[in-house]
Amino acid sequence: MNMQELIKPLIQKNNTKIVLIVLDGVGGLPNASGKTELESANIPNLNALARGSACGLHVPIAYGITPGSGPGHLGVFGYDPIENQIGRGILEVLGLGLEVKRTDVAVRCNYATIKGGIIIDRRAGRIPTEQNKILTDRLQKEMRRIDEAELIFAPGMEHRFAVLMKFPKPLEPDTAMITDTDLQKEGVTPIYPAPLSKNAEKVSKIVEKVINKSQELLKNEEKANYILMRGFSIMPHLTPFQEAFGLNALAIAAYPMYRGFARLVEMDTPSLKKDVKEKIEFLKQKYNDYDFFFLHVKKIDSYGEDGNFEGKVARIEEFDKLLPEILKLKPDVLIITGDHSTPSLMRSHSWHPVPVLLKSPYVLGGLCNGFSERECIKGELGIFPTINLIPLALANAGRLKKFGA
Amino acid sequence: MNMQELIKPLIQKNNTKIVLIVLDGVGGLPNASGKTELESANIPNLNALARGSACGLHVPIAYGITPGSGPGHLGVFGYDPIENQIGRGILEVLGLGLEVKRTDVAVRCNYATIKGGIIIDRRAGRIPTEQNKILTDRLQKEMRRIDEAELIFAPGMEHRFAVLMKFPKPLEPDTAMITDTDLQKEGVTPIYPAPLSKNAEKVSKIVEKVINKSQELLKNEEKANYILMRGFSIMPHLTPFQEAFGLNALAIAAYPMYRGFARLVEMDTPSLKKDVKEKIEFLKQKYNDYDFFFLHVKKIDSYGEDGNFEGKVARIEEFDKLLPEILKLKPDVLIITGDHSTPSLMRSHSWHPVPVLLKSPYVLGGLCNGFSERECIKGELGIFPTINLIPLALANAGRLKKFGA
Repeated sequence: MNMQELIKPLIQKNNTKIVLIVLDGVGGLPNASGKTELESANIPNLNALARGSACGLHVPIAYGITPGSGPGHLGVFGYDPIENQIGRGILEVLGLGLEVKRTDVAVRCNYATIKGGIIIDRRAGRIPTEQNKILTDRLQKEMRRIDEAELIFAPGMEHRFAVLMKFPKPLEPDTAMITDTDLQKEGVTPIYPAPLSKNAEKVSKIVEKVINKSQELLKNEEKANYILMRGFSIMPHLTPFQEAFGLNALAIAAYPMYRGFARLVEMDTPSLKKDVKEKIEFLKQKYNDYDFFFLHVKKIDSYGEDGNFEGKVARIEEFDKLLPEILKLKPDVLIITGDHSTPSLMRSHSWHPVPVLLKSPYVLGGLCNGFSERECIKGELGIFPTINLIPLALANAGRLKKFGA
Repeated sequence: MNMQELIKPLIQKNNTKIVLIVLDGVGGLPNASGKTELESANIPNLNALARGSACGLHVPIAYGITPGSGPGHLGVFGYDPIENQIGRGILEVLGLGLEVKRTDVAVRCNYATIKGGIIIDRRAGRIPTEQNKILTDRLQKEMRRIDEAELIFAPGMEHRFAVLMKFPKPLEPDTAMITDTDLQKEGVTPIYPAPLSKNAEKVSKIVEKVINKSQELLKNEEKANYILMRGFSIMPHLTPFQEAFGLNALAIAAYPMYRGFARLVEMDTPSLKKDVKEKIEFLKQKYNDYDFFFLHVKKIDSYGEDGNFEGKVARIEEFDKLLPEILKLKPDVLIITGDHSTPSLMRSHSWHPVPVLLKSPYVLGGLCNGFSERECIKGELGIFPTINLIPLALANAGRLKKFGA
């Protein structure tokens, strides 16, 4: 029995508030000083909070497995990231800020260079983003609709773009089972899409037409004279957050992709161009309207990905200064954690368990002397799968009945 | 593969003794002093024992899930409490001290008040227990047998009672799949039982006759003039403890429900009206006759449920004073733990992991400075699912062979 099935009959509602702060990529590793980013940061508020909280480390997927942002967020939202995989096409369009429906097929695309029938550059020499916009606009104007699908072309960075095919009717789960046209190799002839299921045939035909029409429209381009398409996918069917956990949820996130993850589980996801301070202001404004708040802090991860240890430390310190504003709200349950670790040393996401603190009236506390990887290990939550975080939040909020009598 | 399947081929017998002490609800949370019940208690014997034992915390069901007494005990007995759920009717009759067989269907019942065909009080004004006894006796006398079933009516407290239907032949697993006649709402017409399977039809017919006959027998009662029936259930089919683990087991418990749990797995369960000291005396008397002893200490939980922090502390201290008597027996493996936590602060069972110590010659020890939630976290067993406790006991008793070569 999976976790959501186990807890569904136990859920009870009340007036408690749960606040989940995701400090994206917060976990780290020591630099030459021997200290991690969290250990190097001057974070008196987080440290004091950790001393009175239940602390631990959560494992997003499994020991040794580095999560992408999608699986990382699904886990902290209480969804099994292995059972609920998000297709590459869907991730791409969410990242570009497009709204995706259950009747859409999403595709990740590259401009490429073809010569004599052979792909000689899969990235079309990384054409400038500005040129990408012009070309993608040209494709859009000439292909607003093919067969029964409305098409949306969305430019990305350099050679990347995405296509969304909007169908009029609900789609079968195997509708997007189509082979990639990109072999991820150069010096080969491009391949045509092949449907892997009966239901995928209509989509495959549209894809074929898009490729042919694009080739015609791009034939005079020096570099971007062909398109490669892959990661055909539809929205994963996730039980809405409200239905799974009985919580009316608001996502406070500035980046489209993170709002997209929250939208996958039907949280409210207003479009916000806000910094952390403004996000906390927004949390205060909306505090009476929801049960659950997901507040996303992106920049900590970005500096980690850049290998900028000091920059990551500074963004953690910036959050620490703002933390008292959140504490003033006195949420019944406050969780501060990350969706994964991003050690500056590695310049990438990593598999390392993620520090977490949970503050509520029903914790032991007193086991950790601060908020860091090495202190959280001493905490009462131990090292545990991320999927347990939401049940713990619900329990601490008095929102779960007893199992059995 | 589940745990029992994994260990079954590894089990070997020897002359070791395993003693499992369940201090019901022993885990707690800090009060205003910052200390938990275990931390507040003067327990020199438990603390000394913990220093030389393998300690940890066990999770009865899952993070955030609060176990009832049934699932809590199944876990410490080595049975998966999610796979083996105990029906409400069975729990009720076990609590009332009735002996249940695999050929029985158990039902939880309420006296209720009906007026003009509408349930106006689901609890019949909580009639006195004495009156309940008189009424239940009347029902028993007039309904000793219906169709092929012998009926046993057992009064409980106030408006509660139970019915056991004893059939002459083994029952199919879906025999008790019958809808509750109690909608758990007032101001509604009562509903008739509906069988949800072919095998449930014969039971459903008996239930209908019981309801009709009761209405006739109770028609002149002012309050208790109707009965509501729910939680129709048969005994879960659990592999007997002896068969699963190769242990000849004795349960030493005073409360009927806990003996009932032990009887579910076919431990010997003599009826005992004994306090803790007398239970330990009984353990000594029977020490040569069994391999495994489950000794249940109820009152610690009761004070926790009452929110009586000092009372819970006192009962823990009382056990501590008696502990040397158990140690004198020098059991090969001694486990002291609870079936769940019951923090006085919460006045209820809770989801918090339960402190456990395991004493044997094959432990590291030296990691914890006493027996408490915060000390056990430092121990060599970590935070682990309760289901692992019995395999650990068997291993420490030399009763498990190597897996593979």
